Amino acid sequence: MKIVILGSGNVATHLSLALLRAGNSIIQVFSRDISHAANLAAKLKCESISDIEKLNCHADLYFFSVSDDAITTLVSSLPYLEGMVVHTSGATGIDVLSAKFKSAGVLYPLQTFSAKRDIDFKNVPLLIEASNQESEDLLVHIASSISLHVQKVNSAGRSALHLAAVLACNFTNHLYALAAELLEKESLSFNLLYPLMEETLAKAKAYPPATVQTGPARRLDINTINKHIDYLGKDTFEASLYILLTDSIIRFNTK
Amino acid sequence: MKIVILGSGNVATHLSLALLRAGNSIIQVFSRDISHAANLAAKLKCESISDIEKLNCHADLYFFSVSDDAITTLVSSLPYLEGMVVHTSGATGIDVLSAKFKSAGVLYPLQTFSAKRDIDFKNVPLLIEASNQESEDLLVHIASSISLHVQKVNSAGRSALHLAAVLACNFTNHLYALAAELLEKESLSFNLLYPLMEETLAKAKAYPPATVQTGPARRLDINTINKHIDYLGKDTFEASLYILLTDSIIRFNTK
Repeated sequence: MKIVILGSGNVATHLSLALLRAGNSIIQVFSRDISHAANLAAKLKCESISDIEKLNCHADLYFFSVSDDAITTLVSSLPYLEGMVVHTSGATGIDVLSAKFKSAGVLYPLQTFSAKRDIDFKNVPLLIEASNQESEDLLVHIASSISLHVQKVNSAGRSALHLAAVLACNFTNHLYALAAELLEKESLSFNLLYPLMEETLAKAKAYPPATVQTGPARRLDINTINKHIDYLGKDTFEASLYILLTDSIIRFNTK
Repeated sequence: MKIVILGSGNVATHLSLALLRAGNSIIQVFSRDISHAANLAAKLKCESISDIEKLNCHADLYFFSVSDDAITTLVSSLPYLEGMVVHTSGATGIDVLSAKFKSAGVLYPLQTFSAKRDIDFKNVPLLIEASNQESEDLLVHIASSISLHVQKVNSAGRSALHLAAVLACNFTNHLYALAAELLEKESLSFNLLYPLMEETLAKAKAYPPATVQTGPARRLDINTINKHIDYLGKDTFEASLYILLTDSIIRFNTK
């Protein structure tokens, strides 16, 4: 399979390396920043371009791993392509591609990627959608060659997953950051929380998380809630965040 | 060491079993509900009482693992005790005990305990504080017999840790619950998120969490943020929670 990668960020990098390892041939990397394109192309041993007019139009597959805003701009600057065009965005519908290209799809890897961390792509859920059966078969084939967890999900389901991922990953990490900041002020190490963080995750995997909720909000322990608000400082932004999350737990439990 | 346990909830149960396994002798369990006291006493093979007047006054150690409100009431109904009195609350100062008893302390296990999950107490950080050196030595000795992670923390530090634990455990679990609810509405399985949840935790342990923040708030991707708010429904409680957490990430990054 001859593949072109559009994008050079974390998703583009991890995905293209997985595709290469699965025996595919990456023939070109496009990025608006030629040094970024060249960096990734060096790892993939292929051509790099920053001028979209030089795009190789004879590939079997084009992966768009660029920012959501850039997809639309990029698509409008492209000629019609015979190969299948696929984007990797959780928040973007398939229509931005299928409106222009006959063979279009989405391959959304449900994982958080960083430059400094290796990810075993075999364990990354790949959520796919395609504009027709033939394209779907191709996308299932290529996705299954790099991951053990391939699932068809339409654009509505993918929107829900993308939002759920923000809650379970981005917001969770932010709460860790706020917790670390609180401890730092008292010269306490963040790693005191590791066993608790691990058990919280293990428990949420063993039981539906709503059924294992604990803490002052869950048991309506108003004294402790007030102590926490006092600690954060009434009328601070942090206190308002604490109050809204506490309210949210109370609302959820009385549903 | 002869120990009396006051309380019969999850902390009292896990702690007393760990103390028993370490070779201590639990001589009595008190709970206002005699059936709860009897259940735990059966596991510990000791006497159970629900009448505080029957409290054995000759123990070496008394552990108060009751709700924060109940500690004060319970203390006021007790005679003076020669043995050391210790509570296990993260949110309560040592003073509720040290005002009445000469040998007082706090042993706060930084973990989330559930009836249905076994916890290896050896890995639970035990944060201790005592009213004098002799009491501290005793508490360090007993804590070290059940956990590998014993650390002295004063009441201010413990308050910070307790609040940090609410953020990193209770609030995080609630976000998992909200994510699971979103997926359920689209007939998608919550376990699609497991690899992401695992990687989020692993990354927050490998790097300071603030430095590995990802997501639409981190990259100021307003289009995606607006899509998420639309998905939740403008003016819904869930949207206001999403907005406040998003704002919090943006504020944190511009500090």
